[in-house]
Amino acid sequence: MAGNSIGQLFKVSTFGESHGLALGGVVDGVPAGLALCEADMQFDLDRRKPGQSRYTTQRREGDEIKILSGVFEGKTTGTSIGLIIENTDQRSKDYGKIAETFRPGHGDYTYWHKYGHRDYRGGGRSSARETAIRVAAGGIAKKYLKQIHGIEINACLSQLGPISAEQFDWSQVEQNPFFFPDQSKLDALDDYMRDLKKQGDSVGAKVTVIAKNVPVGLGEPVFDRLDAELAHSLMSINAVKGVEIGDGFDCITQKGSEHRDELTPEGFSSNHAGGVLAGISTGQDIIASIALKPTSSITIPGQSINTSNEPVEIITKGRHDPCVGIRAIPIAEAMVAITLMDHLLRQRGQNPNVNLAHGPIKGQID
Amino acid sequence: MAGNSIGQLFKVSTFGESHGLALGGVVDGVPAGLALCEADMQFDLDRRKPGQSRYTTQRREGDEIKILSGVFEGKTTGTSIGLIIENTDQRSKDYGKIAETFRPGHGDYTYWHKYGHRDYRGGGRSSARETAIRVAAGGIAKKYLKQIHGIEINACLSQLGPISAEQFDWSQVEQNPFFFPDQSKLDALDDYMRDLKKQGDSVGAKVTVIAKNVPVGLGEPVFDRLDAELAHSLMSINAVKGVEIGDGFDCITQKGSEHRDELTPEGFSSNHAGGVLAGISTGQDIIASIALKPTSSITIPGQSINTSNEPVEIITKGRHDPCVGIRAIPIAEAMVAITLMDHLLRQRGQNPNVNLAHGPIKGQID
Amino acid sequence: MAGNSIGQLFKVSTFGESHGLALGGVVDGVPAGLALCEADMQFDLDRRKPGQSRYTTQRREGDEIKILSGVFEGKTTGTSIGLIIENTDQRSKDYGKIAETFRPGHGDYTYWHKYGHRDYRGGGRSSARETAIRVAAGGIAKKYLKQIHGIEINACLSQLGPISAEQFDWSQVEQNPFFFPDQSKLDALDDYMRDLKKQGDSVGAKVTVIAKNVPVGLGEPVFDRLDAELAHSLMSINAVKGVEIGDGFDCITQKGSEHRDELTPEGFSSNHAGGVLAGISTGQDIIASIALKPTSSITIPGQSINTSNEPVEIITKGRHDPCVGIRAIPIAEAMVAITLMDHLLRQRGQNPNVNLAHGPIKGQID
Amino acid sequence: MAGNSIGQLFKVSTFGESHGLALGGVVDGVPAGLALCEADMQFDLDRRKPGQSRYTTQRREGDEIKILSGVFEGKTTGTSIGLIIENTDQRSKDYGKIAETFRPGHGDYTYWHKYGHRDYRGGGRSSARETAIRVAAGGIAKKYLKQIHGIEINACLSQLGPISAEQFDWSQVEQNPFFFPDQSKLDALDDYMRDLKKQGDSVGAKVTVIAKNVPVGLGEPVFDRLDAELAHSLMSINAVKGVEIGDGFDCITQKGSEHRDELTPEGFSSNHAGGVLAGISTGQDIIASIALKPTSSITIPGQSINTSNEPVEIITKGRHDPCVGIRAIPIAEAMVAITLMDHLLRQRGQNPNVNLAHGPIKGQID
Repeated sequence: MAGNSIGQLFKVSTFGESHGLALGGVVDGVPAGLALCEADMQFDLDRRKPGQSRYTTQRREGDEIKILSGVFEGKTTGTSIGLIIENTDQRSKDYGKIAETFRPGHGDYTYWHKYGHRDYRGGGRSSARETAIRVAAGGIAKKYLKQIHGIEINACLSQLGPISAEQFDWSQVEQNPFFFPDQSKLDALDDYMRDLKKQGDSVGAKVTVIAKNVPVGLGEPVFDRLDAELAHSLMSINAVKGVEIGDGFDCITQKGSEHRDELTPEGFSSNHAGGVLAGISTGQDIIASIALKPTSSITIPGQSINTSNEPVEIITKGRHDPCVGIRAIPIAEAMVAITLMDHLLRQRGQNPNVNLAHGPIKGQID
Repeated sequence: MAGNSIGQLFKVSTFGESHGLALGGVVDGVPAGLALCEADMQFDLDRRKPGQSRYTTQRREGDEIKILSGVFEGKTTGTSIGLIIENTDQRSKDYGKIAETFRPGHGDYTYWHKYGHRDYRGGGRSSARETAIRVAAGGIAKKYLKQIHGIEINACLSQLGPISAEQFDWSQVEQNPFFFPDQSKLDALDDYMRDLKKQGDSVGAKVTVIAKNVPVGLGEPVFDRLDAELAHSLMSINAVKGVEIGDGFDCITQKGSEHRDELTPEGFSSNHAGGVLAGISTGQDIIASIALKPTSSITIPGQSINTSNEPVEIITKGRHDPCVGIRAIPIAEAMVAITLMDHLLRQRGQNPNVNLAHGPIKGQID
Repeated sequence: MAGNSIGQLFKVSTFGESHGLALGGVVDGVPAGLALCEADMQFDLDRRKPGQSRYTTQRREGDEIKILSGVFEGKTTGTSIGLIIENTDQRSKDYGKIAETFRPGHGDYTYWHKYGHRDYRGGGRSSARETAIRVAAGGIAKKYLKQIHGIEINACLSQLGPISAEQFDWSQVEQNPFFFPDQSKLDALDDYMRDLKKQGDSVGAKVTVIAKNVPVGLGEPVFDRLDAELAHSLMSINAVKGVEIGDGFDCITQKGSEHRDELTPEGFSSNHAGGVLAGISTGQDIIASIALKPTSSITIPGQSINTSNEPVEIITKGRHDPCVGIRAIPIAEAMVAITLMDHLLRQRGQNPNVNLAHGPIKGQID
Repeated sequence: MAGNSIGQLFKVSTFGESHGLALGGVVDGVPAGLALCEADMQFDLDRRKPGQSRYTTQRREGDEIKILSGVFEGKTTGTSIGLIIENTDQRSKDYGKIAETFRPGHGDYTYWHKYGHRDYRGGGRSSARETAIRVAAGGIAKKYLKQIHGIEINACLSQLGPISAEQFDWSQVEQNPFFFPDQSKLDALDDYMRDLKKQGDSVGAKVTVIAKNVPVGLGEPVFDRLDAELAHSLMSINAVKGVEIGDGFDCITQKGSEHRDELTPEGFSSNHAGGVLAGISTGQDIIASIALKPTSSITIPGQSINTSNEPVEIITKGRHDPCVGIRAIPIAEAMVAITLMDHLLRQRGQNPNVNLAHGPIKGQID
C-alpha cells in the first residue's frame, strides 16, 4: 500500500521506474516566496548522474529536471511543486533475460512475492534510479535551508571498502570523482577500483553527512525525534544497511565519562552526540553516517532460482556501479535536507510568545 | 508539535513523565477477537522493570499495567485500547538540584531550549521511563504476531563495552541478568560491571533483535520500506545512536560476491541482508542491531552550565543504570513488534485475488 | 484499523467505552508555557454532562477530568497531555438484553459486522459518551486559541425539530437549558419536549458554531482545506448527518451576484461564505452548521433482527436524550476548536520573512 | 504547508495550476495486477471537460491523461502511478488585469494573504481546473472498486437553482448535458440557463452521489468514520459549501420513529441513514449530497479592492461556467471513489480468521 511519500509539513511523493517513461513527484509544503528554478536542482542531479567518471555506471541519462507547477515568476507560490525527469537512455534489452529469474541481493524476489506482477526492466521501481527525484526534492530543501536559515548540508565518502579517510578536508570533496575528503588516499582508491573492475566485483562504502548551522530545538519526541526521522530517511535509500548519529556504534565501547559532551559558557566541548540530544537538535553540527552494501550487480556468476523455483546461474551484465556509495553523496544530502526542512516547519508551530519565557536564544528559530 | 504517535494502521500514542502521576497511551488498530489481558503485557514490563538485579537502577516501580478499554470479556473489540501505569516510587527530591542546570549528555539542554518550560524531575518526558508504555504496547503486538502468524521476536545483549558475545545460544538469554547469549562471558561481565560501579562510570552496549517466521512481502517502498521504518522505531529508543539491518556496517568492507545472499530451490543460502531486500521482508529472519550510548548519569564530576549560562560542576546522584543496554532488551523487541504489526496490517490491503496470478506462496499472508 | 486520532500538529487520540472503566486520551502538540488546569476543561464537560436538565438523559456521571502528564507547575511543557475520566454510573444491567439484538438506527449492526466481537453495553465505543474526551481536548484548544490569539468559539442550538431560532442573541444561549439563542421560543421548546417525552419519541436538531477573530490564512489547499477539515471533524460527531459552511445548502438557489461577498476598503460587505474562501480563512467569522439526527433510543417499539437473523421487536429503555442536539453544543465547539488549533500550528510553518513581500497584514499570524 | 494529498493506504497527491505547464499527481496504493490504461480515466475526464455543451465554459482543453509509471504490460505493478495532463489552451491574457485585484467570492484574497506571492492567472491553484487530476485518480479507484468488488458509483445533478429533480431515473443522467435524472425538467433547465446567461449571472446546484454494492464494515471510528471522511473529501471540492449523508438536513425535523431504519431478516426496510451507521457502512447504498455555490465569475459588476486596499469594480470576463454543479458530477464520483477505496484497503487489515467468530457474512470483504 501507499509508501511513496515522506514528511509531514514538507512532503515529498515520488513515482517512476528505471525504464519507464519518466520519474517525477510532488514536493508539497515549500513556503511561498523562495526564488527557485531548475538550475537549483540540476547541480545535485549532475553530481548523482551516471556516467560522470570511469568509476560509475556508463549508462547515460540527461537527468534534466523540469518544474511543472508551484513556481510563478521565478518564486515559489506555496502550492505543490510538480517535478518531472524524462527517461532517455533506457536500453531495456539489457535486462530482458531477468524477467523470470531473481538476481541474488536484488529486490526481484521480494517485489515478485509482494506484488505478483512487476516491471523487471532494470529493477523497475526498486532501481536506484528513483533517487534522482529525491535529489531534486532535496535540492529545493537545501536551497530553502541555506537561504532562509543559513543551514549547509554536505556529504562525503568516508570509507570505500578497506580504505578509510583519515583526514576530513571538505575542500577536497568536490575535487575528486570519489567525493573523498582525504587527498592522500586517491591513488589507493583508483588502484582499488581498477582491481575491482577486473574482478567484476563490487564493494561497500560509508558516507558521512554533516549539517551546519542547524538551530537548537528541531525534533519532536518521543517518536518523531530528529535522530529517528533521520534514520528513517537515510535507511530508505537503496543499499543502505546501517545508520549512525554522532559516534554511532563506537558508543558501545565508550564510557559515560568519555561520551557525554560537556558544556561551557562558550558552548559544547565536544560532539559525540552528533548534534542530537534526547531527539532534539543541540545547535551543533548534525553528523550522520550510513553504510552502503556492495551492489549485487556483478559479473561473477551466482546461484539463484527462477519463478518456477528452478535453480539458475546469474551473471548481471549491463552498466553498473562497482561502488554505489560514490553516487550516494548527493542522495544522502538530499534525505538529510528533506528531514531537516520538515522538522524546521514543524518546530515553527511553537509560539515564541508562549514558550520562550527566557527570551530569545542564539540560533533559535524566529 | 505532535510527535508522540507511531504507526499508521497499528498506531501507538503515549504520554507520561518520569515523576508525573502516570504513564499511559492509546493502542489503536488491534484487530478484534484477540484474547488479551494485563498479564500478556506484564511479563515484558517485568523484564524491563528497574531493580531486577544489582546491575540495574535500584529505583523500584511496580510498573503495573492496567487496560482501560478496548477489551471485553477477555477479547479485543477492535476499538482503541487505553493503557495506564501509575507511578509509585517518584522520590523527586533526588532531582531537585537540576532544575536550573543542564546535565551533560541529557535532554535537559535541548528540552529547555525547545520548550522553555520543562518538567526537570528525573528528566521528565525525556526519561527512559516512558519506554514502559512502549513495552506494554509491544506486548500486545507480540501477542498478536505470535498467535495469528507464529512470528516470534527475541532480543539479547550482544555486546557490553568491550565484551562481545561469541556464541548466540538463545536459550541462555533469559537465564542471566544480562540477557547475554554467551554463557562463557558471564563472569567477565560481572567483573566488568563491578569495576564500572566502583568507578562511578557507565558503558555502552549493543542489542540484537531477531524476528522469526515473518512472511515475505512486508514493507512499502520507496519511503516506508520495512528497514527504514525499523530504523525509525529503533532509533526512537532513548540512548540509541546506531541501527543496523543484517550485516550493517560490516557491509562497508564486503565484496558483492560475498554479501549477496544466493538462492536455491530450498531457500536462501545465507542472510547477510538481515531478512530485508529492497525494503521488503524476504521471509527469512529479520535481524537488527542497535548501539546504545553509555548513560550520562554518572557520579564522576562533569563540566556544564546552568540556565544563566554560568559554569557549574555536575555529579548525577540518584539511582541509575550503569549500562542502559541491559534493560533495553524488551524495549527493542517492543519497537520491532510495533513496526512489524503495522506493516502486516498494511500489507493485508493487497488483494490476494488480484496480485497473486502465480498462486499462493509459502509464508505469504492470507 | 486505527481511526481514533484527529489532527496533524495538534493531535487528539482517544479511547473508552460507555460502560468501561474510563475514557481518556492523549492530547499532543500543545505548545509549552500555556497555563492549564482541570478547571479549564471542566466547564465545558459540565455543559455536556448528562442529567443537567429534565430535557436530557438522567444518567449521572461526574465526568471529572484529570490531567496525568504534560503540565508542570501549572503550565504546559510541550509534551503530550494524558487525560482520564473515570466512569462511575455504569448500570450495565440496563443494556443486558441487547447483546444479541441490533437496535435500529444504532451502531450495533455495523460494529457487529465489522468487528465480530463487541462491547454491547450502552453502545460501547459507539456511544456518544466518548465525546466527553473530545470536549476535554477541545477545552485545551479553546483556551490556547483564546489566550494566544483571542479566538472565541461559541455554538448554539439553532433549530429543534420544527422550531427555528429567528433571532440570534448569543447572550441568551447559556441562560436556558436548550442553549437556544431566541428567548421568544423557549416556551414552545418546553412544550414540544414534553410532548415528545410523552410519545416516547425523539427529534433532530441543528447546531450552529461561530468562531470569531480567526486570522486570515488558515487552511491548506487543495485537500486539507479548512472547510474540508471542519467538515471532517464535525461529521465525526455521533448523530451528525450534514455539515454546512456559511450559507451551505441555501447556496443552491442563490445567484452569483447575491452570494459573492463583496469587498470594500473597510472589509467584506457580507459573509455568505462563512469565513472560508478557496479553503482558506478570510479573517471573518467562521460559520458552520450541523444537522443531528433524532436518536434511535426511543420507547416506541421497532422492528429489527438478532445476530441469528431472526426478527425481534425492540424497545430501548434506559436513560436517553430525546434530542441529542442539546448536549452537542460543547461537542461542536470542541471539534471546531481542535481543527482550528491544528491549522493555526500548520500555518505557522509559513515563514513571515519569506512570504510576506507585502509586509505584515492586520490579523495575520505573527 | 503540505495539504495536497488525500488518503492513507490509497493516497492521491496532486499539483498544477490553471495556466501552468501541466496538472499531475501521484496515485499511490493501487494493488498490483489491475488492468489499467489511459482510456479508463479518459471517459470521466471527458465528462468533466470544459466546452462539452453550451451550458459550460467554452475554454477548450484536451485534458489528455498520460500514465508515466506504475503500469507494466497493461497491469498495475503496485508501485506509485504518475499521472500528467498537459495544459494546452491557456490564454493567460484573459486574466492579466486581475493580478492586483481580488475577485469577490474567489480565492484571490485568501491566497494573497496566505502566500504573499501567487499565480493569479485563472485562479492558479485555486482554479477548479485542478479537479481534472482528481477525476483521473478517481477513475483508477472506480475501476478497482468495480472490477474487484462490483461497487458502482454514480452522481447526478439533483437540483439546479430552483429546479429540483422529482424523479430519479438514473438511465437519463448520461443522456442530457445537465446530468439530470428527471427528463420532464430538461426544458425548464434549458430556459433557466438561457436566462441566466443573458443576465450574466450564475446559480448554485445540488449533486447527489450513490455508491452501490459497498460491503458492510467500511469506516474507522471514532474520527476516521466513513461519513466523516466522505465529508472531508466532498467538501474539498471547489465551490462545495455543504455535505449531507442520507437524509442530511432533513433529519432536523424528523422523529426518531421515522428516521431509524428498521431491520428485517431480508434486510433494512429503509435507508434514511444513507448507508452509514456509527461511521461504518451498512451494506446499503451510500448516499451523499453536496451543495455547490454559484460561481463568482460573472459579468455583473461587483465591488472589491486591490492589493493596495483601494476600491475597484470587477467584471469577470473570460470563459466561465454559469453553473459549476454541472461539471461537478464526475468530480463528486471521483472523491467518493477515492475515499471508499482508501477505506476498503484499511478495512482489509482486519484479519478474517480473528474477528469473524460468527462466520462469513454476505457482502463482507474477503
